[in-house]
Amino acid sequence: MSDVTFQNNVLDQLLSGKELPSFKFELEKSKGKVIGDSFGKEATVEQLPISKGIAGVSMCIEPGAMRELHWHATAAEWPFVLKGRVRTTVINPAGQTETNDFDPGDIWYFPRGHAHVLECLGKEPTHFILIFDNGYFSEFGTFSITDWIGHTPKSLLAKNFGLPESAFDGFPKEEVYFARGAVPPEAIPENLQGPRVSPPETHKFRMLAGAPHAIFKGGREWRVDSTRFPISTTVTGVILDLESGALRELHWHPNADEWQYIIEGDLSVTMFGSNGRFRTEQLHVGDVAYIPQGYGHSIENIGDKRSRMLIGFNTGTYQAIDLSAWIAGNPLDVLATNFGKPHSCSRSFCARTFSYRQINNISSG
Amino acid sequence: MSDVTFQNNVLDQLLSGKELPSFKFELEKSKGKVIGDSFGKEATVEQLPISKGIAGVSMCIEPGAMRELHWHATAAEWPFVLKGRVRTTVINPAGQTETNDFDPGDIWYFPRGHAHVLECLGKEPTHFILIFDNGYFSEFGTFSITDWIGHTPKSLLAKNFGLPESAFDGFPKEEVYFARGAVPPEAIPENLQGPRVSPPETHKFRMLAGAPHAIFKGGREWRVDSTRFPISTTVTGVILDLESGALRELHWHPNADEWQYIIEGDLSVTMFGSNGRFRTEQLHVGDVAYIPQGYGHSIENIGDKRSRMLIGFNTGTYQAIDLSAWIAGNPLDVLATNFGKPHSCSRSFCARTFSYRQINNISSG
Amino acid sequence: MSDVTFQNNVLDQLLSGKELPSFKFELEKSKGKVIGDSFGKEATVEQLPISKGIAGVSMCIEPGAMRELHWHATAAEWPFVLKGRVRTTVINPAGQTETNDFDPGDIWYFPRGHAHVLECLGKEPTHFILIFDNGYFSEFGTFSITDWIGHTPKSLLAKNFGLPESAFDGFPKEEVYFARGAVPPEAIPENLQGPRVSPPETHKFRMLAGAPHAIFKGGREWRVDSTRFPISTTVTGVILDLESGALRELHWHPNADEWQYIIEGDLSVTMFGSNGRFRTEQLHVGDVAYIPQGYGHSIENIGDKRSRMLIGFNTGTYQAIDLSAWIAGNPLDVLATNFGKPHSCSRSFCARTFSYRQINNISSG
Repeated sequence: MSDVTFQNNVLDQLLSGKELPSFKFELEKSKGKVIGDSFGKEATVEQLPISKGIAGVSMCIEPGAMRELHWHATAAEWPFVLKGRVRTTVINPAGQTETNDFDPGDIWYFPRGHAHVLECLGKEPTHFILIFDNGYFSEFGTFSITDWIGHTPKSLLAKNFGLPESAFDGFPKEEVYFARGAVPPEAIPENLQGPRVSPPETHKFRMLAGAPHAIFKGGREWRVDSTRFPISTTVTGVILDLESGALRELHWHPNADEWQYIIEGDLSVTMFGSNGRFRTEQLHVGDVAYIPQGYGHSIENIGDKRSRMLIGFNTGTYQAIDLSAWIAGNPLDVLATNFGKPHSCSRSFCARTFSYRQINNISSG
Repeated sequence: MSDVTFQNNVLDQLLSGKELPSFKFELEKSKGKVIGDSFGKEATVEQLPISKGIAGVSMCIEPGAMRELHWHATAAEWPFVLKGRVRTTVINPAGQTETNDFDPGDIWYFPRGHAHVLECLGKEPTHFILIFDNGYFSEFGTFSITDWIGHTPKSLLAKNFGLPESAFDGFPKEEVYFARGAVPPEAIPENLQGPRVSPPETHKFRMLAGAPHAIFKGGREWRVDSTRFPISTTVTGVILDLESGALRELHWHPNADEWQYIIEGDLSVTMFGSNGRFRTEQLHVGDVAYIPQGYGHSIENIGDKRSRMLIGFNTGTYQAIDLSAWIAGNPLDVLATNFGKPHSCSRSFCARTFSYRQINNISSG
Repeated sequence: MSDVTFQNNVLDQLLSGKELPSFKFELEKSKGKVIGDSFGKEATVEQLPISKGIAGVSMCIEPGAMRELHWHATAAEWPFVLKGRVRTTVINPAGQTETNDFDPGDIWYFPRGHAHVLECLGKEPTHFILIFDNGYFSEFGTFSITDWIGHTPKSLLAKNFGLPESAFDGFPKEEVYFARGAVPPEAIPENLQGPRVSPPETHKFRMLAGAPHAIFKGGREWRVDSTRFPISTTVTGVILDLESGALRELHWHPNADEWQYIIEGDLSVTMFGSNGRFRTEQLHVGDVAYIPQGYGHSIENIGDKRSRMLIGFNTGTYQAIDLSAWIAGNPLDVLATNFGKPHSCSRSFCARTFSYRQINNISSG
């Protein structure tokens, strides 16, 4: 159906000025919410105004703690595990629940509004980065179960659960956010819903468990969109490794915004915004950056060791166009005229470009 | 296609404050537009600012009158007949028209921009509630045929219809809105389009003609989305009956806003909006309420007789998640940690919850 | 999926006033961007505030010149060739390129973000009208290759292309926009990407090469949406020819905004906007007009020779409802009551209407 006409193209004032705004935020240096040894730090439009399409959170949970039962009214959630182990339980509108355990390099996807819990598993803390497909998500709030139950009259709770009001004595009165208790058993404990009915699509994918999806001169990449992880209809995730000095060449994404988080290394990201607007940001471990849909950009490892970047796109279908592939696909006379160069120069330029692309293209994956 | 990225997540200032705004409007106590014994009263963002996703209208048409030929540029229409009988004629872009007669408990669906007329049928007045999938719909106006013809130069009308200008002498100069004339004959009169070609999907559904789609302790429910009524791709409707004292348990809808109208009884509706925000409204016959997408809520009959609520959602695919089902689907240790209770307590709590859900769940339908 | 609920129906302040705003802009009388004998003139929300859904550009390219390599981050492009010949090369995210030559009456479609170049072919200048599915498109800028390369540090370019920095000596420092060089050879020159792989859907359609899609009394029409030109999923184009004095009757489009450009003749366009709002604009060669989705309108040739209008809709599925067809599809008593006329009058009115529609309907195509 032609719903495009109802989508109200809205002018983004922030991107309409003479200069490009900053597209970097030092996420791990921010304070965030801290409870015990657990924390959550967020990058939303409040911290990084350009990031209207995607928000992100860095979360650490200590052993025996969990991010309590909650849901997000306005965003789907796509996390990548950096350290430690996580157990999640999620429910879908058909009433089906799935409990999964995650190791570093694994990801999950929870559709908008589907409730879940995130437990630290084992005796080591866990650290993971969550990507949300809405830059405003935190503004609308996160709906936690203790916040809800704590503000609901006991008489209503009693009726709702078929229990005496006294059953709710001692329940938390305010949002717990990070709850702390015993370390979960390794075997998944029973629930009282009865035998689990598996949801039609799993919420778990082992992103780094297999070989990279593309290997190129100077780097490698894992890339997961809905073709590899069917439930992830609104997010694509990438892990991009670059050797010291290597460059992810100039390119853009016609159908999605891009959200970056530095796991390892020191990088330089350029952004081209038309009308002569060009900006470079240097990113270090724990920093976040954001590239609006269609904006040209490049990613370069400027440190002395291999870098690793986590990238999220707000689309279930990955698309990119590389500058060198674009150039190489044009008739030679177009290049000569466009750059004001003789044919011989364009041929040489183009030949080099093409051969570079052959060994360095990371778009084919 | 990945059009999600073009949907401009826009911050709703009204839902970003420290307190939840009112989500109730006394629709039937409002004045509205009155012509003779017919009236139309509306609840749009002007009357109920929170209701950005859905608007509603209460309309009464006296015998011999009709809501004149018109269309809505920016909303689809989903009405439920409370009293009396209605005849509608609607045209689609393929030029196919359908004329249907409706009794109490019947519904129709007219896609955005499809023109139609609503006639009172028989000698009794008719009363129905219209739900629109856009809270701003009235702001953009309703396009009535007399308003159009009355403001079009006669020379243009003459050319348009192949008639002399004098043919339009005595036509209304301003919008008629409710036109009054003879009571329509019981048999559908002829038109001059020739034999009718049925549209591929009927616009009529007899919502209450069959058994309820779910019966539970304390209540019953009819629920119609596009799986039962294929043309209704953007609206789901529900009739919820509750016995005195009964409760539609705490739940939320991950994919739609909810618009409520009280047909019978006295109800208490709670709304949970995250960040400690909780609000209760008491609703009586003719009142309207609105729950934004993803917001937790409950519905309780606080009167001494059976209540009936009409509910509309701005989705063609009904989805809900119940608090008790969610709780019951989690490993027991999650509940113990989340609520700070020993395992034994959680087991008891959860068992009760689960058994309650078994007899009271209205999400399975 | 029910993404409708996330589409944030946003109030259009411009269409909410007591009077309709102007819906006309004299595009060809505007200055635009001029380089040599080439020019580009645009109609966006800046020049024509009502046109939020669609923007347009009139472009003339002199022989030997081209609109340089570029892409649009926020709009798809649908152009119609008026004069001369054009060669385009476009790349898609799969890396497939297509080069096509266009004559007057031909059209192309480039999806949002897909990069391309437009060359004048042969020794005569070319003139074409581009339609974009976003009225704000220019505000977000056009991304030109020289703008990008000119603002990228040479060290980064050298690394990107595997060339010495000196290879970029003499490259343009600022956006070229119209580049000038040799007239392209008639045979499409080689590129260095290797053998071309045809994209799954061609970007070219010969709109006026066949017979009109509808012939009616006083006019004829070519109409191309995605059913005839599959890649054009977000734009429908129409060429409407009217004899002197002929009228495209009162009608509206339930699913799309409409953008008009006058190729030949003098026309009067009326617009009905509900709430008694009615406005007429007289349009001459080179003028542009805009009708919001669902607004009633008519198009009349008020000159003394045949007119030709180019029309674009922001939908891939053409839909229209004609006033006369709508009237003729209603039971006769509805018309009698609605217009306050006796049955006999309505029958006569309706009969005439119907017979007029039979010979004049241009919606069936």
